[in-house]
Amino acid sequence: MKLLEEKILKEGKVKPGNVLKVDGFLNHRMDIELLDKMGREFKRLYKKSRVTKILTIEASGIGIACMTARHFKVPVVFAKKSATSNISDDVYSTQVFSYTHGNMNNVVLSKEYLTSDDKVLIIDDFLAVGAALSGLIDLCNQAGAEVVGCGIAIEKAYQDGGRKIRERGYRVESLAMIEGMDPEKGIVFTRQFR
Amino acid sequence: MKLLEEKILKEGKVKPGNVLKVDGFLNHRMDIELLDKMGREFKRLYKKSRVTKILTIEASGIGIACMTARHFKVPVVFAKKSATSNISDDVYSTQVFSYTHGNMNNVVLSKEYLTSDDKVLIIDDFLAVGAALSGLIDLCNQAGAEVVGCGIAIEKAYQDGGRKIRERGYRVESLAMIEGMDPEKGIVFTRQFR
Repeated sequence: MKLLEEKILKEGKVKPGNVLKVDGFLNHRMDIELLDKMGREFKRLYKKSRVTKILTIEASGIGIACMTARHFKVPVVFAKKSATSNISDDVYSTQVFSYTHGNMNNVVLSKEYLTSDDKVLIIDDFLAVGAALSGLIDLCNQAGAEVVGCGIAIEKAYQDGGRKIRERGYRVESLAMIEGMDPEKGIVFTRQFR
Repeated sequence: MKLLEEKILKEGKVKPGNVLKVDGFLNHRMDIELLDKMGREFKRLYKKSRVTKILTIEASGIGIACMTARHFKVPVVFAKKSATSNISDDVYSTQVFSYTHGNMNNVVLSKEYLTSDDKVLIIDDFLAVGAALSGLIDLCNQAGAEVVGCGIAIEKAYQDGGRKIRERGYRVESLAMIEGMDPEKGIVFTRQFR
């Protein structure tokens, strides 16, 4: 998505340690007009999929998920990071390692809000090694819900999360795919091949 | 707001320990159409305030904040709960006690994204003792930003957070004000006096 790529080039900051800071428009300060256009693009990509629910994970996926759900006219459910491993019977749960914070999170979702009738579009801000996305797919599988696909804002295509999830047969659409980045050389995007 | 009150009566669950569960439409599964109408109502209430930014706190405020920002055509900034008390120079920070989780959070906001030029509408899902809201006001004061008001989905009017913040001179608009609730007797709403 050209608009997002341009925004990343203009305002994104490459930091040492493979970090792309986009918190000026995506995940701290949120450019709502941009998020709305991203939502419209996900709708265009998944318009034939009869999506019944958008699933994301707190916190930085919620904004994009909401602005996407508006175009699909479906609810959003967000999985919660739980401090406790004392999981009740009422939730699906999975373990997701956070590379940002260096810790393992129990991620939970109330069984009430995801069922075998659902056709789910999973939305998240980043895809790198695919830890969060795999966790969200796992929650859908526990519920018996159908994953119609994943909608990602920014995929770090030089890490292998996207490849692995596509190899498992899931459709993954990323609005910007980064082939490589470097504090000095900047950011290079991959063209997507569909 | 009649629509929200009706939704609370229909789907909200009063649990022992002064807990109102509205996670079927507000803060786990999100009814995006309802959130959008709430956003439109906040716009109606604050249309003269020249809002430049919506401020909220992760995670459950983000959805309402995004759907509100759409009507104001302004960005959202969300304050982050930080596990570490090792706060950098680049952020404003404040302490917010979570009654839900029984712990103190450092809440941080990048200095880049809130300045003395901003006229801020603070949005959150609940107002009870006012801990989160006071923290967000504190962040605005540190930035020298003007708080034009607060927009709350559900205020527990029988707790004193709202009264205290209004007494400090801040405008607080709550779309549903609960006068009392009880697992057996149900929920009673207050009419708002303006």
